[in-house]
Amino acid sequence: MPKRLAYLGPAGTHTEKACLTYDPEATRLPFPSIEAVAAAVESAGADECVLAIENSLGGSVTDTLDLLIHDSTLFIRHELALPITHSLLVKEGTQAKDVKTVFSHPQALAQCRSYLSKHLGGAQRVASMSTSAAVEEMLQRGPDAAAIATERAGHLHGAKVLVNGIEDNPNNMTRFVVMAPTDHPHTGADKTSVCFAFTEDAPGVLHSVLGEFARRKINLAKIESRPTRESLGRYIFLVDLEGHRKDPEVQEALKAVESQVSMFKTFGSYPRHGPPF
Amino acid sequence: MPKRLAYLGPAGTHTEKACLTYDPEATRLPFPSIEAVAAAVESAGADECVLAIENSLGGSVTDTLDLLIHDSTLFIRHELALPITHSLLVKEGTQAKDVKTVFSHPQALAQCRSYLSKHLGGAQRVASMSTSAAVEEMLQRGPDAAAIATERAGHLHGAKVLVNGIEDNPNNMTRFVVMAPTDHPHTGADKTSVCFAFTEDAPGVLHSVLGEFARRKINLAKIESRPTRESLGRYIFLVDLEGHRKDPEVQEALKAVESQVSMFKTFGSYPRHGPPF
Repeated sequence: MPKRLAYLGPAGTHTEKACLTYDPEATRLPFPSIEAVAAAVESAGADECVLAIENSLGGSVTDTLDLLIHDSTLFIRHELALPITHSLLVKEGTQAKDVKTVFSHPQALAQCRSYLSKHLGGAQRVASMSTSAAVEEMLQRGPDAAAIATERAGHLHGAKVLVNGIEDNPNNMTRFVVMAPTDHPHTGADKTSVCFAFTEDAPGVLHSVLGEFARRKINLAKIESRPTRESLGRYIFLVDLEGHRKDPEVQEALKAVESQVSMFKTFGSYPRHGPPF
Repeated sequence: MPKRLAYLGPAGTHTEKACLTYDPEATRLPFPSIEAVAAAVESAGADECVLAIENSLGGSVTDTLDLLIHDSTLFIRHELALPITHSLLVKEGTQAKDVKTVFSHPQALAQCRSYLSKHLGGAQRVASMSTSAAVEEMLQRGPDAAAIATERAGHLHGAKVLVNGIEDNPNNMTRFVVMAPTDHPHTGADKTSVCFAFTEDAPGVLHSVLGEFARRKINLAKIESRPTRESLGRYIFLVDLEGHRKDPEVQEALKAVESQVSMFKTFGSYPRHGPPF
């Protein structure tokens, strides 16, 4: 039976492309919010889900981090990284010089800012809830509208690709995580993600906590902070480290960290990114 | 002559409210993007500017951090923190039960998610480029539309306030920075913001760099990471520390940090937040 893979819809987004890369045979189930995506797996309505977690230009996808911290019982089981490219889509017959309005998600509009000012100088930018929704909104308008989305969204909705690859920065990559009820067994080339918070003034303790990893020569791949949602100036720290949480030295370091912090959560261990899975 | 204060417009946003709190006498100059806001000060078209930098729920305003890191020669001269409240605005005559569509900036829509599902269950959420633009879009629609924005945006545009304080979390605060061509002289209760990056694998070095502050008992108020924009997994670290960059021990620590990193930038020293300025 094919795997049931939940993702943030609609079809035609970069996240759907990540699903296709991860498991082309899976049955893809689009949901309207990341909470609904995770809930589908938690209620066994889907086997796994795919969520964007970090972009090389925009940084962390904070909704996904906050879901991991506050609202989910799932584990990270895989990660994968994909190049992000944007296409300029129009109705059949529309030419670049006709375009007066460009629809897209604010982040995609921002990622194509230089292209838009250079080639569509006077066009007004209009926000959509997703790049795929932008294509639908564009198609409902006159011949003076365009949308920024994936080429696939264009095909799905019957829009025409005017230009591919209009993103300003060629280093545009997004990292996605596959979340599931259990994390991944040891492979020997693993990563582990955890988060923690302090009751005391954070950053002095942070230095001591990072020392637990440094002293065991455990490499940290990432460190990030998120608000606790309680007050300004209180943070939860997220750390990605190299190794599996069942590795003896990782286990020891995590135990030492846990004893110094007021809140600790493991997001799981998983093979380091990219195929092969 | 009143101070000329640039900000991210249009009028009626939370940032305009921050301008009014910071200096009610100033001439407020709205600009359409944060790059344009900073450029206004850099070209002496404005004396100072106000930008949101961090929200207690959403976390850092990454556009402002990236402007500080990559694109601006300005210094942080002040900071202030304001409570953020959202109002539900409609056309005169519209009642809650009529509302089928709610316009707002995606972040404001997200911050009122529980209120919307509880009280306006079936309403469709539509993205706008700003909360203030949402009010204008709502007013152009029929009597079944509402907008989420500041009460002041309602007054400015002639919309009616249906409900105040519809945000889900009462701990919703935003920290703003005032940027200027120079930072603030020493006051004795100061903060300093800097950023740095490593060419080597970051987090082992990060532990050593944080040690420069820990050993001098310099408290860190915040640590954050942003992508370098070069590749996934490379970060620039932003640190807010207590003290002025002219304080001897801060000066010493920053010098020691600078010698260990490949990139270093000072955003300036300024009095710790809130009035009095």
